[in-house]
Amino acid sequence: MIAKKMVKYVEGSSVIRAMFEEGKKMAAKYGAENVYDFSLGNPSTLPPKEVNEAIIDIASNEDPNRLHGYMNNSGFEDVREAIAQSLNKRFDTHFSQKNILMTVGAAGGLNVILKSIIDPEDEVIAFAPYFGEYNNYVANFDGKIVAVSPNPPSFQPNIKEFAEKITPKTKAVIINNPNNPTGVVYSEKTIKELAKVLEDKQKEYGTAIYLIADEPYRELAYDGVEVPYLTKYYDNAIVGYSYSKSLSLPGERIGYLVIPDEADDFENLIAAANVANRILGFVNAPSLQQLVIKKCLDASTDISIYDTNRTLLYDKLTSLGFECVKPQGAFYLWMKTAEPDDVAFATKAKEFNLLIVPGSSFMCPGYVRIAYCVEKAMIERSFAAFEKLAQSYGLK
Amino acid sequence: MIAKKMVKYVEGSSVIRAMFEEGKKMAAKYGAENVYDFSLGNPSTLPPKEVNEAIIDIASNEDPNRLHGYMNNSGFEDVREAIAQSLNKRFDTHFSQKNILMTVGAAGGLNVILKSIIDPEDEVIAFAPYFGEYNNYVANFDGKIVAVSPNPPSFQPNIKEFAEKITPKTKAVIINNPNNPTGVVYSEKTIKELAKVLEDKQKEYGTAIYLIADEPYRELAYDGVEVPYLTKYYDNAIVGYSYSKSLSLPGERIGYLVIPDEADDFENLIAAANVANRILGFVNAPSLQQLVIKKCLDASTDISIYDTNRTLLYDKLTSLGFECVKPQGAFYLWMKTAEPDDVAFATKAKEFNLLIVPGSSFMCPGYVRIAYCVEKAMIERSFAAFEKLAQSYGLK
Repeated sequence: MIAKKMVKYVEGSSVIRAMFEEGKKMAAKYGAENVYDFSLGNPSTLPPKEVNEAIIDIASNEDPNRLHGYMNNSGFEDVREAIAQSLNKRFDTHFSQKNILMTVGAAGGLNVILKSIIDPEDEVIAFAPYFGEYNNYVANFDGKIVAVSPNPPSFQPNIKEFAEKITPKTKAVIINNPNNPTGVVYSEKTIKELAKVLEDKQKEYGTAIYLIADEPYRELAYDGVEVPYLTKYYDNAIVGYSYSKSLSLPGERIGYLVIPDEADDFENLIAAANVANRILGFVNAPSLQQLVIKKCLDASTDISIYDTNRTLLYDKLTSLGFECVKPQGAFYLWMKTAEPDDVAFATKAKEFNLLIVPGSSFMCPGYVRIAYCVEKAMIERSFAAFEKLAQSYGLK
Repeated sequence: MIAKKMVKYVEGSSVIRAMFEEGKKMAAKYGAENVYDFSLGNPSTLPPKEVNEAIIDIASNEDPNRLHGYMNNSGFEDVREAIAQSLNKRFDTHFSQKNILMTVGAAGGLNVILKSIIDPEDEVIAFAPYFGEYNNYVANFDGKIVAVSPNPPSFQPNIKEFAEKITPKTKAVIINNPNNPTGVVYSEKTIKELAKVLEDKQKEYGTAIYLIADEPYRELAYDGVEVPYLTKYYDNAIVGYSYSKSLSLPGERIGYLVIPDEADDFENLIAAANVANRILGFVNAPSLQQLVIKKCLDASTDISIYDTNRTLLYDKLTSLGFECVKPQGAFYLWMKTAEPDDVAFATKAKEFNLLIVPGSSFMCPGYVRIAYCVEKAMIERSFAAFEKLAQSYGLK
């Protein structure tokens, strides 16, 4: 009786549930401390103390009807203006409140902007490997996702293939920087090349192609690497941001879209996104969390915890003979599998109580994603298991 | 460059923006205290004190990683179990946590359940007058909304026409009880008749037809009138609830769906709704507000404030010769317009600084909606304006 479109999702979710149940069984059988779960992208650092201080302050002092009430579907104007000014200070941009639309996390923001621009059969390009939910978000609006092939070993986008895959039906391109699942940061050189291709194709076809940046991992970059701010390189750039990782607030569902003045059809785009936020059922981003964000614009989680885990895990895995991409951002390590079948490799890893995600889930077989947003002690405990995994493939 | 589907929405939103701008201009010209805005369904009573107390308590004492972290897409299990038990106590039902899915308000819940069941061209029946957003929610999934004609003067659903409009493609029926915009409460007799028709048609066509109750106004019922709990009358009933009005928290976007064990295809329906919550971009209902709800299950806003407004306004308008439906619930008064053209009537009202919404917005011309979730003093100040409006139509 459920919708035909939903059948495959329900079947897929049964597989995930089965994995989850198996994980619970493994923990019961071997003891939770002997199961090494690297499968989830759930922040392991605490939110900064400013968050709960802001919540208490706001609940104690704010007018309750403002605090918990409806506002414009785009969000509180003062919150949006504060975010705009904070971006301007950091990135030398020129935004004001009218460029900012508060959203129910980045997932909400992506759905809002896709609803605003995608007609059935419109094409949206993504660079494999990419977050599998993009497939679902684009399908929500009957768009067609077009994948550009993975580009090892750097995993920077393949610009030549990208140019070839743009057609008159290309409406948008999604990039995720820093990248889930590779941990790679797309460089300024990459972004400039992407922008050049897009500008040329826009001229060639007489179309507008929106470059959508999905940036929940923006603040998670290591070794001083810069994450280019897209609106500075391309007029039709739209940024989707989330505080899920930067403030460790994934459950609160709070983020925003940036739609710059320079974007084609700006007035209609802003109006469409405002309406989409309403009719998709979000209505507005949660009001209390909007006010919290205004008070926490300069706060951040302690990313040194992730940085430590990153080095620890990368050094160990490479020393065991695994081929890994050195992560520059996010909290994922991307590793080539020691046999071509990544699902078989992940299954083999499970024999050693290691839970890791096959690259196929990210449209890139032959790799696995290892999420290191976990306790450092678990990483250390897992080393013996990774050693056995390496040995089982005849690595050192 | 925006999606073709969005063009009509953007045009519509320009009209609303223009109205809003005009309202601001009127306030500037005549003074805010001389403009009588009855257009918005924004709760005017304060949230109960338990809400902010709960927020402060939770922010002070809850484990921050649980408080702000991801949980199952359906919500925290303990919150869902507490809601289930609270419903069981009130309505003698038999729910547990597996029947409850936490949502981003009722708007989020309706989109989740429609995504779960609607294939393109499936039909969804609603009873005019109804909340205009239902058109948009159903269109999100390429469903087709089928309106049953208004049934004055009681505005209880027209059961005969309802039965005639059910087809093999009817997948769902939405009812909103207490009703926006009429303030009518559908009686137990009505619900039993609806259920009987649906059962007969399910048998006749061999289909499942889900009866979706949109219940943000459940707690706003006056004079001791009972609002029947739908799952007790029909197995395929699904309830969408929101705390927007019952706790005056519309900005927080917190509500839930109830999917009973008895619903056809229960396991798949629950799984589909869980996935829909994720892929539509909600991911989960805001985590802090979920925990707040658990602590506020027995709290409520002071509805005597709305009740006082209701009587005051109804008595005055009927004394002026207007034909009104006496509201039994929600915070809207539904009034027949003194000329057939409700838009012209609302425009005439504006000449007297009265802002009211034409019934056409609710698929029911010839009426207007007057929202009395406002300051009592504003209602009293507006009486002279309503008197002039009555006089301009030759009423007493």
